[in-house]
Amino acid sequence: MMVINAGKSQHNEDQACCEVVFVEQRPSPRGWLSSSEGSGELDGGRKGFYFHYWALFDGHAGSGAAVMASERLHLHICEQLRDLVEILQDPSPPPICLPHDTKTSPADPTQVSYTEDHGEVPNNAVPRFHLEKAVSHESLVIGAIENAFKHMDDQIERERASQHLAGGCCALAAIYLMGKFYVANAGDSRAIIIRNGEIIPMSREFTPETERQRLQFLALLRPELLGKEFTHLEFPRRIQPKELGKKMLYRDQNMNGWAYKKIEEDDLKFPLIFGEGKKARMMATIGVTRGLGDHDLKVFSSNIHIKPFLSCFPEVSLASSRFAPGVPAVARATWQDQICPVQQEPSLPLILASCPVACQVRVYDLTQYEHCPDDVLVLGTDGLWDVTNDKEVAAVVMEVLTSYEPNDPCRYTMVAQELVVRSRGVLKERGWRLANDKLGSGDDISVFVIPLGGPGNYT
Amino acid sequence: MMVINAGKSQHNEDQACCEVVFVEQRPSPRGWLSSSEGSGELDGGRKGFYFHYWALFDGHAGSGAAVMASERLHLHICEQLRDLVEILQDPSPPPICLPHDTKTSPADPTQVSYTEDHGEVPNNAVPRFHLEKAVSHESLVIGAIENAFKHMDDQIERERASQHLAGGCCALAAIYLMGKFYVANAGDSRAIIIRNGEIIPMSREFTPETERQRLQFLALLRPELLGKEFTHLEFPRRIQPKELGKKMLYRDQNMNGWAYKKIEEDDLKFPLIFGEGKKARMMATIGVTRGLGDHDLKVFSSNIHIKPFLSCFPEVSLASSRFAPGVPAVARATWQDQICPVQQEPSLPLILASCPVACQVRVYDLTQYEHCPDDVLVLGTDGLWDVTNDKEVAAVVMEVLTSYEPNDPCRYTMVAQELVVRSRGVLKERGWRLANDKLGSGDDISVFVIPLGGPGNYT
Repeated sequence: MMVINAGKSQHNEDQACCEVVFVEQRPSPRGWLSSSEGSGELDGGRKGFYFHYWALFDGHAGSGAAVMASERLHLHICEQLRDLVEILQDPSPPPICLPHDTKTSPADPTQVSYTEDHGEVPNNAVPRFHLEKAVSHESLVIGAIENAFKHMDDQIERERASQHLAGGCCALAAIYLMGKFYVANAGDSRAIIIRNGEIIPMSREFTPETERQRLQFLALLRPELLGKEFTHLEFPRRIQPKELGKKMLYRDQNMNGWAYKKIEEDDLKFPLIFGEGKKARMMATIGVTRGLGDHDLKVFSSNIHIKPFLSCFPEVSLASSRFAPGVPAVARATWQDQICPVQQEPSLPLILASCPVACQVRVYDLTQYEHCPDDVLVLGTDGLWDVTNDKEVAAVVMEVLTSYEPNDPCRYTMVAQELVVRSRGVLKERGWRLANDKLGSGDDISVFVIPLGGPGNYT
Repeated sequence: MMVINAGKSQHNEDQACCEVVFVEQRPSPRGWLSSSEGSGELDGGRKGFYFHYWALFDGHAGSGAAVMASERLHLHICEQLRDLVEILQDPSPPPICLPHDTKTSPADPTQVSYTEDHGEVPNNAVPRFHLEKAVSHESLVIGAIENAFKHMDDQIERERASQHLAGGCCALAAIYLMGKFYVANAGDSRAIIIRNGEIIPMSREFTPETERQRLQFLALLRPELLGKEFTHLEFPRRIQPKELGKKMLYRDQNMNGWAYKKIEEDDLKFPLIFGEGKKARMMATIGVTRGLGDHDLKVFSSNIHIKPFLSCFPEVSLASSRFAPGVPAVARATWQDQICPVQQEPSLPLILASCPVACQVRVYDLTQYEHCPDDVLVLGTDGLWDVTNDKEVAAVVMEVLTSYEPNDPCRYTMVAQELVVRSRGVLKERGWRLANDKLGSGDDISVFVIPLGGPGNYT
């Protein structure tokens, strides 16, 4: 991993975290029942599973939210998963309904008859409603990750005053759990897989442009959230008062195309979404539409809050993978300090499989594919992607990896370092410049390079 | 084209339309200015362009809406395009702002100084707002199609009482205009391109499952639309009152995964979205979430309207194409009556090109591809796709086409007929059966097979 501070803020607002987390099953008063159900262990040992976790947090308006998220998000994910330990380890489909949680309803112990009422409740109420939707294990993990982001955001909200947590952050996390990779993204960081030179996007960016319709829909239904300052309609540029009555191009929330409308008084308000590309802003304030924190962020010199439009929920992509034991190496480098020692991690030869989850979830079916040591998952903040596109990243990955032996664990570190160095460029008179003399990234840059296959597979 | 009535309703609720429409520029009081601008023609002839149009309307709860839509939608599209004739024929980017429309502001002629104030207004109001978004010609056409659907829906609403228009309909329309193909879909019909045996989806279905998050978001923000009958949360099955306090899987509007929640009183309401696949229903009432009509549709024995959730706006996919003149043949067959004579149409060798429109618009870049006579665009109502999947349709297309000479114009008709016949199956004792003895489509079936290349290209 590689992190660099661009100098635009005193402290690096990019934060990173890389952990192996043990998810221990929550102690249950019903534990003694486990053996009779054949699903538990009574050896007194810890029951649970590990997940591997890499995450990047791109802070703005301060590093407080990013720092806290980097210290806690994986713990929230762990907490959400604790209730699922038994369910995820059981190959049968997850139960739709669980019995009363004695912790949450201690006042009513009489209602619970464990022997009669444990686990799935047969549905015999109304014949019309006998349909039951199948829910996969993977979609429980996705739900756990989604809710962990929400709990993280709630914690930042609660503690922002006492902990002096300033600003907000984009969050991108890769979780490897029980042979599958989950990539959760809230913001404008990006994850791609580079597999045999081919680029497979594992995330989408959430910006005023990509989320225009969600934001416009919310504004249309809750116009009070706009104060009297903004219109939910999009226009290609600001309208001048003297243009009243003329016809101007616009887009409403249910349109992808543009049409002309006669300009009315209300259209003179500032558009909810304005600008293009990196300059696109929501309410003239912020360039990302998902992330953690920002609970106090308001439109300049107004009492209009950004938060109801800014969502903390990530989009989670899923990739199934076969675990190949004994192949270490996650590259990790911190520019500010020094190159960190390469950590030993199990390698993650990735084989993506289809999974019956909702259509918005990105699933890549690569079941037939055997990963080689040059296949990697790259996570980067926008500081990387703004100046180095997917193809250029893939080219650097291949160039650097081929210059090292396949079993040299340093090679991934060198990729991460090279990606950061090339994207930052060199400080010249006219600012940071890339090799082609284009402007370098003026932003903080962080990169994770995670190998998906390793020499152990091939020697 | 091929249409069949399944017998589930007395009249075929599927309707179809195939037209070549001339879009004539709207007469303008400023017409005399055209010559000085170099953009007009003063030959007294009609100025405009043609578009080709094929559409399917799958009616429900009566054929009234479907019949009216099949008679009028192309006229609404024409009407929306009339204002764009000059703009679309001018290769320079569309103007962001148009001068006062004298028709809509006749009381204020003094304000308009044509020589000074015609066309684009220079934006010099506020330096901060000098940014101007580029808008493509294609996105104006998409906007015109989107608004045409809205106007069609409004017309059905206005005239439904006087014209006795019952029910609603899904609408799928393919428009070929100035070398590009636009496919607009509102409902669960489907369009695919079969190109060299490969399947390219040109539409998405809009159902309670695919549009879950939009519907839940609307319900969350406007709970009054649910009456007191429904909850916006999704559950895998109905909850029984005696399960209060237990934990059950749920999904909220911002989740793709599932999580457990403690069942509360409010969760006992019927879920907004319920059921799976073809049995999925919104408010236990309707299985599609976009379409025209249905203005009077309410939840059974309640005063809860479906319409605010049911959207009339289509999703428009775009494909650029090169026009190859002189290659006729659109297959057209009506099962109920007889095989209609094959109409002479210009062929449409399709070359899909990327286009700078919004990310929701599907764009296929096939610029390098030269279409052959076996490449077709297939439009079908759900009666086709429910029993015959994309691959099977592609197989039938290839099987039938190869059994005819490439220059035989009947071959496309035979494909359409074969697709309908195979999907309906044969009436046996236990209902309509397919060749594999599976159940045939119990629904009306309509199919358009539109050739994308033709013998003229290759002889």
